[in-house]
Amino acid sequence: MIKILFDTLGSDKGYKQVVLAGVNSVNEYKDLEITLVGNEQDILEELKNYKYNAEQIKVIHAPTEISCNDTPTKAIREKTDSSLVVGLNTLKEGYDALISGGSTGAVLTGGFLKVGRIKGISRPALCPMLPTLNGGRVMLIDCGANVDCKPINLCHFALMGKIYMEEVMGIKNPRIALLNNGVEEHKGNDLAKTTYPLLKEMPINFVGNFEAREFLSGDADVFVCDGFAGNVLLKGTEGAIQVVMKKLKQGVKKSFSAKIGALFMRKVFKSLKKEFNIEGQGGSILLGLKHILIKVHGSSSHLSFESAVKQAMQLIENKVVEKLENEFSKLNVEED
Amino acid sequence: MIKILFDTLGSDKGYKQVVLAGVNSVNEYKDLEITLVGNEQDILEELKNYKYNAEQIKVIHAPTEISCNDTPTKAIREKTDSSLVVGLNTLKEGYDALISGGSTGAVLTGGFLKVGRIKGISRPALCPMLPTLNGGRVMLIDCGANVDCKPINLCHFALMGKIYMEEVMGIKNPRIALLNNGVEEHKGNDLAKTTYPLLKEMPINFVGNFEAREFLSGDADVFVCDGFAGNVLLKGTEGAIQVVMKKLKQGVKKSFSAKIGALFMRKVFKSLKKEFNIEGQGGSILLGLKHILIKVHGSSSHLSFESAVKQAMQLIENKVVEKLENEFSKLNVEED
Repeated sequence: MIKILFDTLGSDKGYKQVVLAGVNSVNEYKDLEITLVGNEQDILEELKNYKYNAEQIKVIHAPTEISCNDTPTKAIREKTDSSLVVGLNTLKEGYDALISGGSTGAVLTGGFLKVGRIKGISRPALCPMLPTLNGGRVMLIDCGANVDCKPINLCHFALMGKIYMEEVMGIKNPRIALLNNGVEEHKGNDLAKTTYPLLKEMPINFVGNFEAREFLSGDADVFVCDGFAGNVLLKGTEGAIQVVMKKLKQGVKKSFSAKIGALFMRKVFKSLKKEFNIEGQGGSILLGLKHILIKVHGSSSHLSFESAVKQAMQLIENKVVEKLENEFSKLNVEED
Repeated sequence: MIKILFDTLGSDKGYKQVVLAGVNSVNEYKDLEITLVGNEQDILEELKNYKYNAEQIKVIHAPTEISCNDTPTKAIREKTDSSLVVGLNTLKEGYDALISGGSTGAVLTGGFLKVGRIKGISRPALCPMLPTLNGGRVMLIDCGANVDCKPINLCHFALMGKIYMEEVMGIKNPRIALLNNGVEEHKGNDLAKTTYPLLKEMPINFVGNFEAREFLSGDADVFVCDGFAGNVLLKGTEGAIQVVMKKLKQGVKKSFSAKIGALFMRKVFKSLKKEFNIEGQGGSILLGLKHILIKVHGSSSHLSFESAVKQAMQLIENKVVEKLENEFSKLNVEED
């Protein structure tokens, strides 16, 4: 039985969507147990609306919510009866994964403080996956867990990215790129310039510097960068895609013939929207921790939690944490 | 008479496009003189194909090209008969602006070494303008001239951005945002966290932290950041827009009804393409130098040079260099 915890509080759309995701998930997988952490009374009341195998859903009472306005470190230390803190503490007691849609800062801080990192990994990293032009997927590591990084951190991100792409995505010898402001070896800020020669020595398929323009091209499987630059790339990409979509809508509204055209093109628009819909992509795993912790978008519906469950199951079945432990114990690298 | 220099070498599409841009520009503006710097024989031969007022076009012989493979500092020092170096040296002798489509690194280095910066400005910055959702324009400063920055540099970028938006774009009290990985005041990497309180004290309309997602929203007029993050944002945005367009094309090719739809929507697509076409947006000015230096995209056609001419004329007519000198002499800021 795979045992996954859901943090039901902290998501913008409320606990009901999280409960629904739990029901849908256990109805899809027979070997799955979902534990809903949050306000027990609310959850039990909501569960009455659904049919499911009662043995597959558990509830843990933890009624306090950590919001985006809370200071992460303070909230994790003081809000001991919050769904996130209780979830994190419970994770270590024989559970396989925790999925949360709460405050990113709190999830990261909680992961560092409560779950702990794998020996040898200097910094765990948040790593979302995005769709590429040729129908594949690209991983961005780190996208915000570590906004100030040293070269050794980026080297660890590269190795974690390699292991994830090989073990979970089944990509042999994944192409690891360093995000940079030019492709030439001498390019970059101090961090990139110092990291480049180190990456060349790592046991990875390092394909050199890549500009942000190539992020979704499909020419690299993993983009390595510090969390600040990664956050800019991820959110800049999301923002640009949204603006193009909105501009198209504006254009269609203005013209009758374009409205007709849009009708004929609705399947294309729908599939494009689906492809770039962050909700279908699961969440961002905080890679490098001793247990699986997945952060889904705060504005997510039940669909995000459901795809994060699939992602967690792949991570669990492919023993990614064990493989990371194993690889990093072999690598004789200095910790940060 | 406004006197603008064109660096005819170094652009991917060759000197002929630059010559054409010169002809088109003088045919549009009677009070404009264009000086084409490059291989004199080639240029004169090409000019034979066009009609124009001969008094408005001059040629300076400088046959050597600086390419992207040259090390910028070395090339600027050693290639003294290159079109870029000759152009930069000539700029100081009574010319108003130089426009180049050559290697970004060489243009930046050449600008620093040959043109010199305005007193009080710690670092000149490369600042492109992009179209926003509501039909306006947003400036990104810096997008690659300074990949490692100190807080004082970002403060200077903010003030330069303010002056440019007010004087050239006519925006009163422009809203200046700090690019960050979250909107809260305590967010950011070391650089952003240290810069935030300084920007609050600057004589600008500081609107706080903005995430990359909001870059094209139109809610801020200027995005301030170090050149590495700015480069990631600019190129990430360009790349994402291209991918959406390509995906749409792929979708249309696959279906007959979508092909029909695309026909009805062709005006919408055309205007969208035009709006996000970097060529129509002019170039990126290297703001903070004693003379006007504009870098256009390396893969530009004549259109980029022509819109950069318009941009240069606005800068000249609005005396932006003088206004920067004036403002920064008032500001009692420590130089870097």
